[in-house]
Amino acid sequence: MLVLVIHGPNLNLLGSREPRLYGKATLKQINAALKKLAADLKIDLEFLQSNHEGEIVDAIQKARGRVDAILINPAAYTHTSVAIRDAFLSAEIPFVEVHLSNVAAREEFRRRSLLADAAVGTIAGFGPESYLLGLRAIKKIVASSK
Amino acid sequence: MLVLVIHGPNLNLLGSREPRLYGKATLKQINAALKKLAADLKIDLEFLQSNHEGEIVDAIQKARGRVDAILINPAAYTHTSVAIRDAFLSAEIPFVEVHLSNVAAREEFRRRSLLADAAVGTIAGFGPESYLLGLRAIKKIVASSK
Amino acid sequence: MLVLVIHGPNLNLLGSREPRLYGKATLKQINAALKKLAADLKIDLEFLQSNHEGEIVDAIQKARGRVDAILINPAAYTHTSVAIRDAFLSAEIPFVEVHLSNVAAREEFRRRSLLADAAVGTIAGFGPESYLLGLRAIKKIVASSK
Amino acid sequence: MLVLVIHGPNLNLLGSREPRLYGKATLKQINAALKKLAADLKIDLEFLQSNHEGEIVDAIQKARGRVDAILINPAAYTHTSVAIRDAFLSAEIPFVEVHLSNVAAREEFRRRSLLADAAVGTIAGFGPESYLLGLRAIKKIVASSK
Amino acid sequence: MLVLVIHGPNLNLLGSREPRLYGKATLKQINAALKKLAADLKIDLEFLQSNHEGEIVDAIQKARGRVDAILINPAAYTHTSVAIRDAFLSAEIPFVEVHLSNVAAREEFRRRSLLADAAVGTIAGFGPESYLLGLRAIKKIVASSK
Amino acid sequence: MLVLVIHGPNLNLLGSREPRLYGKATLKQINAALKKLAADLKIDLEFLQSNHEGEIVDAIQKARGRVDAILINPAAYTHTSVAIRDAFLSAEIPFVEVHLSNVAAREEFRRRSLLADAAVGTIAGFGPESYLLGLRAIKKIVASSK
Amino acid sequence: MLVLVIHGPNLNLLGSREPRLYGKATLKQINAALKKLAADLKIDLEFLQSNHEGEIVDAIQKARGRVDAILINPAAYTHTSVAIRDAFLSAEIPFVEVHLSNVAAREEFRRRSLLADAAVGTIAGFGPESYLLGLRAIKKIVASSK
Amino acid sequence: MLVLVIHGPNLNLLGSREPRLYGKATLKQINAALKKLAADLKIDLEFLQSNHEGEIVDAIQKARGRVDAILINPAAYTHTSVAIRDAFLSAEIPFVEVHLSNVAAREEFRRRSLLADAAVGTIAGFGPESYLLGLRAIKKIVASSK
Amino acid sequence: MLVLVIHGPNLNLLGSREPRLYGKATLKQINAALKKLAADLKIDLEFLQSNHEGEIVDAIQKARGRVDAILINPAAYTHTSVAIRDAFLSAEIPFVEVHLSNVAAREEFRRRSLLADAAVGTIAGFGPESYLLGLRAIKKIVASSK
Amino acid sequence: MLVLVIHGPNLNLLGSREPRLYGKATLKQINAALKKLAADLKIDLEFLQSNHEGEIVDAIQKARGRVDAILINPAAYTHTSVAIRDAFLSAEIPFVEVHLSNVAAREEFRRRSLLADAAVGTIAGFGPESYLLGLRAIKKIVASSK
Amino acid sequence: MLVLVIHGPNLNLLGSREPRLYGKATLKQINAALKKLAADLKIDLEFLQSNHEGEIVDAIQKARGRVDAILINPAAYTHTSVAIRDAFLSAEIPFVEVHLSNVAAREEFRRRSLLADAAVGTIAGFGPESYLLGLRAIKKIVASSK
Amino acid sequence: MLVLVIHGPNLNLLGSREPRLYGKATLKQINAALKKLAADLKIDLEFLQSNHEGEIVDAIQKARGRVDAILINPAAYTHTSVAIRDAFLSAEIPFVEVHLSNVAAREEFRRRSLLADAAVGTIAGFGPESYLLGLRAIKKIVASSK
Repeated sequence: MLVLVIHGPNLNLLGSREPRLYGKATLKQINAALKKLAADLKIDLEFLQSNHEGEIVDAIQKARGRVDAILINPAAYTHTSVAIRDAFLSAEIPFVEVHLSNVAAREEFRRRSLLADAAVGTIAGFGPESYLLGLRAIKKIVASSK
Repeated sequence: MLVLVIHGPNLNLLGSREPRLYGKATLKQINAALKKLAADLKIDLEFLQSNHEGEIVDAIQKARGRVDAILINPAAYTHTSVAIRDAFLSAEIPFVEVHLSNVAAREEFRRRSLLADAAVGTIAGFGPESYLLGLRAIKKIVASSK
Repeated sequence: MLVLVIHGPNLNLLGSREPRLYGKATLKQINAALKKLAADLKIDLEFLQSNHEGEIVDAIQKARGRVDAILINPAAYTHTSVAIRDAFLSAEIPFVEVHLSNVAAREEFRRRSLLADAAVGTIAGFGPESYLLGLRAIKKIVASSK
Repeated sequence: MLVLVIHGPNLNLLGSREPRLYGKATLKQINAALKKLAADLKIDLEFLQSNHEGEIVDAIQKARGRVDAILINPAAYTHTSVAIRDAFLSAEIPFVEVHLSNVAAREEFRRRSLLADAAVGTIAGFGPESYLLGLRAIKKIVASSK
Repeated sequence: MLVLVIHGPNLNLLGSREPRLYGKATLKQINAALKKLAADLKIDLEFLQSNHEGEIVDAIQKARGRVDAILINPAAYTHTSVAIRDAFLSAEIPFVEVHLSNVAAREEFRRRSLLADAAVGTIAGFGPESYLLGLRAIKKIVASSK
Repeated sequence: MLVLVIHGPNLNLLGSREPRLYGKATLKQINAALKKLAADLKIDLEFLQSNHEGEIVDAIQKARGRVDAILINPAAYTHTSVAIRDAFLSAEIPFVEVHLSNVAAREEFRRRSLLADAAVGTIAGFGPESYLLGLRAIKKIVASSK
Repeated sequence: MLVLVIHGPNLNLLGSREPRLYGKATLKQINAALKKLAADLKIDLEFLQSNHEGEIVDAIQKARGRVDAILINPAAYTHTSVAIRDAFLSAEIPFVEVHLSNVAAREEFRRRSLLADAAVGTIAGFGPESYLLGLRAIKKIVASSK
Repeated sequence: MLVLVIHGPNLNLLGSREPRLYGKATLKQINAALKKLAADLKIDLEFLQSNHEGEIVDAIQKARGRVDAILINPAAYTHTSVAIRDAFLSAEIPFVEVHLSNVAAREEFRRRSLLADAAVGTIAGFGPESYLLGLRAIKKIVASSK
Repeated sequence: MLVLVIHGPNLNLLGSREPRLYGKATLKQINAALKKLAADLKIDLEFLQSNHEGEIVDAIQKARGRVDAILINPAAYTHTSVAIRDAFLSAEIPFVEVHLSNVAAREEFRRRSLLADAAVGTIAGFGPESYLLGLRAIKKIVASSK
Repeated sequence: MLVLVIHGPNLNLLGSREPRLYGKATLKQINAALKKLAADLKIDLEFLQSNHEGEIVDAIQKARGRVDAILINPAAYTHTSVAIRDAFLSAEIPFVEVHLSNVAAREEFRRRSLLADAAVGTIAGFGPESYLLGLRAIKKIVASSK
Repeated sequence: MLVLVIHGPNLNLLGSREPRLYGKATLKQINAALKKLAADLKIDLEFLQSNHEGEIVDAIQKARGRVDAILINPAAYTHTSVAIRDAFLSAEIPFVEVHLSNVAAREEFRRRSLLADAAVGTIAGFGPESYLLGLRAIKKIVASSK
Repeated sequence: MLVLVIHGPNLNLLGSREPRLYGKATLKQINAALKKLAADLKIDLEFLQSNHEGEIVDAIQKARGRVDAILINPAAYTHTSVAIRDAFLSAEIPFVEVHLSNVAAREEFRRRSLLADAAVGTIAGFGPESYLLGLRAIKKIVASSK
């Protein structure tokens, strides 16, 4: 089972970025934790971090027919990108949307996700643990769809 | 570690209720799966299912100072109950909000949660697995706050 | 053919409650008229009046597989209860929504029904006659679905 | 007792028009059923079907002082005609608004009726039975106002 | 003169509940202060605290014809209960709505009261003093209506 | 100078139609008063009353190049007819919009005029006098544009 | 018959102020024309121009019981002053609202009048002629109310 | 292949009507161009221009089972007619909606089409060429559906 | 303890102004009642009534550092004055907002207070008693903050 | 005559992407059909497909003064890109907006185009034929502007 | 070059007014800094501070034809005064709108400026420096318009 | 002191792009003017112009800990980019938002800035001078924060 992990814009700054909101874990540490859990769950992982909407669209398209599921923290693009939504709909890969912070408790404009209704499900508010729970969710989804 | 699991209105009908949306697992089966995982995670569980908003408020109040966290699927009361929100704020118990279905993909009025911004985090769309992921999230939260 | 008649909150005060809006007939008189018509239509009736949202949810659930249809005047819960809506969707019993007064001619917030689009149909504005018309509608629906 | 039955635009196509929504009964059959019930209730009926807003306004005006009540399925004009509303208010004839389909379960713009708050009451969702229930309602209204 | 004092959901936790917002006085202390003032004003008091919307509806109905006025802090039900509004309209008992905190300075959804326009008046923001002022207001209202 | 006077739907019932709102003057009396004033102002008048949107559109089109201005009480079509608006824009005839009642003091939907911003000006609330003032306004407009 | 004419803020600049919108007539010329017409109609006039909301409120209050009607062009205060609205409601003097320009054809925020529904009627779009028509309207109103 | 071309209200004035928006071509010239192209495409054409909503509804109904497709410029009725929408849905004839001007660049209320989502597609902004492109689109649609 | 009492626009007409809404008490009588209560509570009072927004702003500024609290009935300025709001925020004097009528039961635009969230609390609906309750509230606030 | 054809994000997946909505034609096939028609119309074509908003902006800028018109299917960027809108406004190249599917019949957020009012016109709903019609439209536009 | 500096309501309290938001500089200090810069830029300055909307309107009118530009911090009147907007439009004096605080980061109602679209430009968020930048902007504007 | 100047999408076309709105100065000229002023203020400058949202995000991230402040004209991304907002919040570099045109006087969608409330302040409407004023503002901010 192969899973692509996509980190949206500004997540490369994790650890130092607004630690009150996003915690102190770096992206490197999150990826390491994901790899460890993936090994337990017998999942292979690929990673992408990009600040470019177009690159994320490209990556989703290329994952088509090759990857079993995508774990994505779309960050800012959650609220503004119809292109990423359409990429998921076109590529027909199941995906799980995760957020480090509890987006429901932040600015009004963060309450609208252009992706959530196209996702299998969403997980938000648990810091780096959101990713790990998302990976477990994917394990379950892919397993049960086989 | 003691966790109270609250199932909101109509969840007692799970398994037979709109299986296309909510799956075939019964509440009994979900509780059994939760108990199993709880044993692994060294968590004690208590359960409540109620169709009555007031009973859920009562239960949250009584959990105060006795329970470490609450795992709640508020179902219909997600969208209409300020009383349950206030109960959580009053009782000062961390809670995780879970949903079986992907609420973002349903009727417009289901997109507003009166609880989500007061929760630690939310998990939606993974069927019974949403509960299990929620329990794991609680394990992490309670552990890290000690 | 068995039909459950549910009277929502405050309808127990009918007759004395705002007679300009709701007329002078008491709930007892309405139930008597319903029984009389039911006898003509060869329908058995059960009655519930409750001011508690949860009790109404419970009653709908218990009607499942036992009752052919529900005739409900949800009163105030028309506008605020997702739980009753979900109970109907879960129980999969056809129901008819009736109102004594013409809700379209009252406060703005009474114009939204959280139930109407899940009902077979709605009847409003004819005083106690709304119930009798509703029972006739149910007779027709159940007959034609057999 | 004389009642005018008005069928709004496109109802002349009933039976063949979107049968999933409107059923298979033709307008002729509905009128026949109405006549039969009217005979039982000792009501004389007149019929009008028109696709023209202005013709419906004319008909309502002419009914003034001559007709006891109007039974109208305003169809599309429900949502767009202030002129028909004003005709009813001017002619001061009690009327009942009926719909074949459950308008609450359809497009958003069908949820607003420009007539409903000026009607005695409304009946929607029971197919041709909506008309028959509407006629019964009129019988009751006219009887009780005498 | 007999006055019923109704405390809505979660007010039983006063004193320990979010003291920054609601102050340190317990419900017991508030009731004691009310009793003391009532004695001065020659008013008899009855008390109810409930987390159940239906119980509050029941209590208002039972107060009919027996109680001169109701002093209510509807708490969370202020914003969501049409049933309590209808109970007041049905029971035709004058009531005063009080709030401990200044609801205008809190979440957006707390700014809408479904009761306020049916009340004689409202008092908000003075902590336990809101209740005492409310009782004085009732004294005046009942006195002047006699 | 030739002026076309257009009376919109239901104005043929004036005098008997909701006299509290529209007064007791009949359309015949209003037209007579207009003729008398027109004679004083040296204006020739033509009259049209129609309940049909299309007929009013036709009449405006035919007035083109033949009539100096139009005095219109669009009644219900004020709020719903883009076709009449477009007819005025196409025919390029200056027009004055008049209303018998004060539309700002009535239902919310009557506050939007689809014509007013294309008119030279509007006069509302003075009963039949609105027409006479409108004719005087036209006299001034046409005079000053020559 | 005594009529107070109130010119709202910035109308003292008429003639030079945005002549494309407001025309070239000065306030002095408008007042002269009003006086001339008033003499014909046997009306005495008083004038006030003020840029101060409070002064206009004072003037309306002082007109109470002394003046038969008020002719007001509230200008900018049309859209922002509840105080002037309340002054009219308090003073119980009939008033007519006039505007030089066609407010329906301007900025969105100019479409809302806080006064219009409390006025007898409104006249807009005819330049200085709006005032003269307004005075004629007042003549009619006061005459017919005597 | 038979196609009905419907021109909505005020299009009979084309050529002289607001030429800045709609161009200088007359309806006659547009129809001639359509006939010429139809001959090339081996399509027979019928034409209707009407200012009456009801006549357009009638025409669509009569086209049923006789005409392969309808090319319509609904003009003003685009934004206000549910009756024409329902006529199309009832008649089950594929149709293409065309506009001479670019409606997206005009008044806000012209941005809502009550027909567009029921059409096969829409073409707007190309002057008379919009019709010709619409006819080509119809050729393709009908051809590919056979 | 020194308290400034501010009466907003049109309150000088109390007693004769819309007595159905505001009662028959004059401002003089209200001030006398306030003085009497103030003597009991050992509070000194100053009074201001003004129809001018700017004068009220000036008065609030001048009260700074000299007055313990302000009791204000902002009347019409409740809904339109950011300047008075900012004056309170600048002057940092605690204030209580009172209304004679129950503003929640009046026009929609009266439901928004630009001051309430900056006040300590609000009291509305009790006629002149609102002021007396407000003075008692101030006594409590100032006492408890010392 | 040189025309630049821009395919927005995810259109490279055409043929396999949601074929129910977008049909089975691949982008290659669409381009081939465009080339064939372009040869007939004596137009030279250039093609760009990009998932990157910035690349599309760059391409529009570079087309300036070199290309006669642009044919664009902006896909997801239709609804979210002010940058592409501004690029068109800056480059001053006429453009036609085309869509394969009927966007009016899809999600609410797809109904707003940030480009349409800056385009010459739009064509939507005809599958690959939308492009061919768009190219014909461009031929006409460029020809008539010379 | 002569520039009028207008300070809106409550700015006379600067220095002591909410220093967290507005800083510690007094109005006197700001005026001194402005004078110093004006001397460098060869600009003469006049100053007005007023809490009265009408006085500010008067001042703008009197500046007409005498002053080259106005530098205004409209404070609270930014959001509520159409009268000041109209004064600027009438007086035809270019003006620059400045704010001490970053209004975009404050209450929702402060985000709407009734003046900004009529200003040459706006500067907000830099404390007293906003004024100095505004004066520089005016220097540039007036210079370039000569 | 080092300042990064970021020019958003389409600003590379300045001078030729819609000169009525944006003036005739080229980006090169603006940068030259900025350099000249920077030399006077003893500031070092770096420049970036990009049409790519992702590149701007990258640049802001890289500026972290190296640059004292950012001067940005986000152009079209002002209204659509949460990613750039988050980049600023993550990088914790103070920034000033500038606009050449007065955005308040343009299309409705340009009135919302997703950046402004996170900026120190904003300057709009002064053409190239906006940049120079912005640089002066930065000088002040950085100086005063040291």
